[in-house]
Amino acid sequence: MKKISIIGVTGSIGLQTIDVVEKNKSQFKVISIAAGENVDVLRGILSRIDVHRVCMKDETHIATLKLEYPKIEFSYGMNGLLEIAHDESDMLVTAILGSIGIRPTVAAIKQKKEIALANKETLVAAGAIVMDAAKEAGVQILPVDSEHSAIFQCLKGEDKKAIKRLMITASGGSFRDLERHELDKVTLKDALNHPNWSMGKKITIDSATMLNKGLEVIEAKWLFDLEVDQISTILHHESIVHSMVEFVDNSIIAQLGNSDMRHPIQFALTYPDRLPMDNPLDWTQLTQLNFKEMDLNRFKMLQYAYDAIKIGGTMPAVLNAANELAVNEFLQEKISFLEIEQIVENAMNHHQVIQNPDIDTILHVDEVYKNNRF
Amino acid sequence: MKKISIIGVTGSIGLQTIDVVEKNKSQFKVISIAAGENVDVLRGILSRIDVHRVCMKDETHIATLKLEYPKIEFSYGMNGLLEIAHDESDMLVTAILGSIGIRPTVAAIKQKKEIALANKETLVAAGAIVMDAAKEAGVQILPVDSEHSAIFQCLKGEDKKAIKRLMITASGGSFRDLERHELDKVTLKDALNHPNWSMGKKITIDSATMLNKGLEVIEAKWLFDLEVDQISTILHHESIVHSMVEFVDNSIIAQLGNSDMRHPIQFALTYPDRLPMDNPLDWTQLTQLNFKEMDLNRFKMLQYAYDAIKIGGTMPAVLNAANELAVNEFLQEKISFLEIEQIVENAMNHHQVIQNPDIDTILHVDEVYKNNRF
Repeated sequence: MKKISIIGVTGSIGLQTIDVVEKNKSQFKVISIAAGENVDVLRGILSRIDVHRVCMKDETHIATLKLEYPKIEFSYGMNGLLEIAHDESDMLVTAILGSIGIRPTVAAIKQKKEIALANKETLVAAGAIVMDAAKEAGVQILPVDSEHSAIFQCLKGEDKKAIKRLMITASGGSFRDLERHELDKVTLKDALNHPNWSMGKKITIDSATMLNKGLEVIEAKWLFDLEVDQISTILHHESIVHSMVEFVDNSIIAQLGNSDMRHPIQFALTYPDRLPMDNPLDWTQLTQLNFKEMDLNRFKMLQYAYDAIKIGGTMPAVLNAANELAVNEFLQEKISFLEIEQIVENAMNHHQVIQNPDIDTILHVDEVYKNNRF
Repeated sequence: MKKISIIGVTGSIGLQTIDVVEKNKSQFKVISIAAGENVDVLRGILSRIDVHRVCMKDETHIATLKLEYPKIEFSYGMNGLLEIAHDESDMLVTAILGSIGIRPTVAAIKQKKEIALANKETLVAAGAIVMDAAKEAGVQILPVDSEHSAIFQCLKGEDKKAIKRLMITASGGSFRDLERHELDKVTLKDALNHPNWSMGKKITIDSATMLNKGLEVIEAKWLFDLEVDQISTILHHESIVHSMVEFVDNSIIAQLGNSDMRHPIQFALTYPDRLPMDNPLDWTQLTQLNFKEMDLNRFKMLQYAYDAIKIGGTMPAVLNAANELAVNEFLQEKISFLEIEQIVENAMNHHQVIQNPDIDTILHVDEVYKNNRF
């Protein structure tokens, strides 16, 4: 029985992790969970599984919840998250959004917990720190993203030295069929209409700008310890091939499956084993897979991500934070779609990069660029 | 430096093995080679690489060759092949055609040599004997067929218990775009015009009848120690996905590459490592992969192969031998394309299966059905 804790349990990945756990009750026991402010979703989760400890974003609902669930230990804020990092679980699922995920992840690594990683900021902003900590602690970081899970699966049993390059597939997002000059007229509603995946709003916009793929390139660089030039992207409309690895002998290994996040979540939880699951690929329906070269002029945000990771230091954190600011403003319909790029570009141009930053520095930079336009 | 010997060196796979060896001279040294009757091709090979021993099909050219190559030891026939099985090499590449490959392969396994297996009959007719011998000797059988090499690569680092099914891809052969009723008019020339692969005549016809895929199903059953029902086939026109494995969690791992037999040959020679190679997949040209369910009514020979392996014993040997007879007659334009099926069906209906046959029995059955119609 693997004991797991989940931070960010009320989000899309968190809830699907609960689905996987519920279907495999003999395999997994949830110890602690951390939620944001969504008490109703939390109550739904607590009606499905027993947990020892719940952490909330702040104190607001703690008193009420304590009365409702007298057997559960409640906490809140960063202290609560760090308590979870130090609990008796074997694995921490980091499904929480934002840079708040960095500290508890590093703390859990130091406790020698396996990490099922779904929090992008952990590797985008603090990749060097996190991977160094994991190496020192001898801890396995298991990717939950479908693309990184695919690559991780393609690399099973392979030698890192044999890798020529990773090929991260990209659905192309909501505007994949539009030329660049057509992007000045697109609306928020258009942007939120993703062709393949049902995801949170932020990630759907990031998919439309292709920054999502850029963040994945940065994550892959850290996760698989490769040079940036070994990480390529390719457009693949159907989102069936979740990613590929090309080896030095030109053999390509690909991982395929439905667009169902429960698959990579379950793989991270059961690794190195595989457990039976529903929703297989239906080859009577699937008759064609399409591929197209990625155009970094069409998708500028992807180019910015390559630029940011090549510059290194605090620059990827700036890219991510400025994008968070810009996407928030776009979601509030304060700016146009193409202004997202402009805000990110301006932030990167403004930033004086700091090499080898510590977590405090990273979080400071994150705070500054998340709250200020340049 | 790996010492390898090659039986069937003047055929397509044999010559491409020489190409791979020549490009990696610091890695491989060829000890012995066995050729058929093609002395000119043999001379070409001997001008490219040094070998200790040459085995010919019969005595015809031995005296002449001894004068030409005084430093090389010459032998012929089954005794010569068995000498190679007992030579000082680490690996035997079985590129020889026909059931004559079975004895030297088993002998080499007992000498604890790795086998790079390209001889179909070894597993189709004598799968149980060969795999038992390999298990007992602790010897790795490395597939050279592109499909089996693909599966072998997809299974790297995976647990056999996690396999749901193999998906062997089939180009569909020369007549893939024809309906069944259109097959009564096709000619030998049409049949030899394979859309994707440049191969020997026999295998090109087997590809058109789909018996080639049937033999691969039987080989896969032995090679990967699976139930027949775990082995499926799927039409894939481009021959880019060389095969796939579906796991119990519905994750599918696929291997892709150009239609270039040097890739699987090199992988077998270098396993578990990968060495750099030319001819990568060009993703600026590759934009689409197509898949289609296999129809066992359209491709009856594939159904016969499933039937034969389910019956077991000597039946797969009969399937293979009767097909060899039929294809020879088709290549001599003595029979029509659809008569190939009829000859195989009649042979299988006639045969009284013998379970758990020894090699003598298998070779006897092979001889009978290769030389007689029923």
